[in-house]
Amino acid sequence: MPDSSADLLAAVADCIGPELAEVEKLFHLELASGFKCVDALVRHVSRFRGKMLRPMLVLLTGKACGKLTPSHITIATVVEMVHMATLVHDDVLDEAELRRKGATINHLRGNESAVLLGDYLISHSYHLCSSLDSQMASRAIARTTNQVCEGELLQIDNRNNLDLDEKTYTQIITHKTAVLCAACCQLGATLAGASADTISRMERFGLSLGIAFQIQDDILDILGHTSQVGKTLGIDIEKGKMTLPMIHFMKTAPREHRELLRSLLTIHEPDQVEKIRNLILPSDSIDYARNQARQYTQQARRSIAGLPDSPAKDVLDAMADFVICRTI
Amino acid sequence: MPDSSADLLAAVADCIGPELAEVEKLFHLELASGFKCVDALVRHVSRFRGKMLRPMLVLLTGKACGKLTPSHITIATVVEMVHMATLVHDDVLDEAELRRKGATINHLRGNESAVLLGDYLISHSYHLCSSLDSQMASRAIARTTNQVCEGELLQIDNRNNLDLDEKTYTQIITHKTAVLCAACCQLGATLAGASADTISRMERFGLSLGIAFQIQDDILDILGHTSQVGKTLGIDIEKGKMTLPMIHFMKTAPREHRELLRSLLTIHEPDQVEKIRNLILPSDSIDYARNQARQYTQQARRSIAGLPDSPAKDVLDAMADFVICRTI
Repeated sequence: MPDSSADLLAAVADCIGPELAEVEKLFHLELASGFKCVDALVRHVSRFRGKMLRPMLVLLTGKACGKLTPSHITIATVVEMVHMATLVHDDVLDEAELRRKGATINHLRGNESAVLLGDYLISHSYHLCSSLDSQMASRAIARTTNQVCEGELLQIDNRNNLDLDEKTYTQIITHKTAVLCAACCQLGATLAGASADTISRMERFGLSLGIAFQIQDDILDILGHTSQVGKTLGIDIEKGKMTLPMIHFMKTAPREHRELLRSLLTIHEPDQVEKIRNLILPSDSIDYARNQARQYTQQARRSIAGLPDSPAKDVLDAMADFVICRTI
Repeated sequence: MPDSSADLLAAVADCIGPELAEVEKLFHLELASGFKCVDALVRHVSRFRGKMLRPMLVLLTGKACGKLTPSHITIATVVEMVHMATLVHDDVLDEAELRRKGATINHLRGNESAVLLGDYLISHSYHLCSSLDSQMASRAIARTTNQVCEGELLQIDNRNNLDLDEKTYTQIITHKTAVLCAACCQLGATLAGASADTISRMERFGLSLGIAFQIQDDILDILGHTSQVGKTLGIDIEKGKMTLPMIHFMKTAPREHRELLRSLLTIHEPDQVEKIRNLILPSDSIDYARNQARQYTQQARRSIAGLPDSPAKDVLDAMADFVICRTI
């Protein structure tokens, strides 16, 4: 199994490099517009492309379960567009000023362009998806985006809810993040002709992996530095989002520490994020969250244990590890 | 032909009343969520439901071309959701404070909820669409929403472009408004089993009707009163959108009037809208725009002239008239 993120990327490239390049090509082909102003905006968003985690899940799952088909390339492109749309709309939501070391769309062009560019991406994702023969994938993708919206709305509804419990937190991150990863793996397996049982295992793999990924994201929001992670940190705190380390802290820390956190979360000071970080770091709440993420990772790995040995299976296994070790 | 909007509504109810009631039911069924906070937001948006123009186009076109099927109900509900999504996202775009005599979503809950509720509506529209047997409708709807986004982006790109020409204006309103009306009529005819020629005529009917509708909307934005129309007026002016009366005025009014408009559009004063209205009203620019709208209406009516006589055809004919006579 690869032991660093560079090794992991090399293993991914070995396994599905040409297919990822096809996804990249289809992404640009689908988004091309006859209007120059639309193309300029799309070019701008392309610079923010991320790790392509979701296309990788479609392609690796497909390869681990059978043979890749042209439909895999289509769906891998669709899920990347869906993910990009949520990133662009999150910029409206989060008022983040930096994302991946570049200015955000809303910073450069205003909220209106950010909303419309997100709409353009989501519209093209459905458009591309509807080019497949059957409605199966369209139905699965739309059901998934329904849930993503519910997760985001549930999150907003619980903004500044300092008593958010772990169960609701898990519901939020399952909906807003994990269901899309689950759909990637479910569709990757389905399009490779896997059995119903294998499809269901792969879906569970994606779901567990997605939950672990989001917990780690939430940990990094507290721990990281802008220079390192390349996006504004402490956003969750500033936006009143309670994440797992804070939820655990509010349940287990000494009473005076909990009251301090409560007052820090309520009164917005310039060094609020720094103070909260310094309060939580010495506690065991980060470790608790890490441990929860690890358990989801182990669940994910158990879900694919029964697959026949293959390089794709090894890479999926390594990805499960990567999502909780990563600092980016 | 009915001669008032009440008569038109009565004729619509006679022709497709039960089907519109089914659309209403399916709309709520599809949007129901397991999360209370989502349901509360959806209930809120339901209060802003409009004239159901787009579902009417699907159903009337279907009936004028053949028999209505359950798929017509589905698509009629889909297009209403698409339209509602654009309204909700327009609230983010337009910062409108009133719409249909109620507070807007973004006013009540912030931009974030407005973005997500729009996303929820658009996601459910695709979800519902993907329940049909074939991908045909999904593909047509997604192609349409691609174009709607392009129209909106082109509009933003031309904000404060005081030299906007009529051709680009027509491109903008065709994309942002008319293509959805065209898709309604095309799908209504297709699902009723119409011939390729009839489908194409119906599509042209919807396109012309949609353009006329938007020109009239733009005229009403200059003419109307909040109390009468139930939404904030003069929004186009405030947001730097040049519409047909203003474009015509900038091309034809005496030089000093044009320069006055140019300076009024550049310097934002409290009574800017009022002053611009008073400048344009005595000119023939409103009449010019009305005349253009009338020509599109006539084109629309010519497109359906070849259909066999039927109550549905009569109502479509009356609707073409209504879109340019309406004051709401």
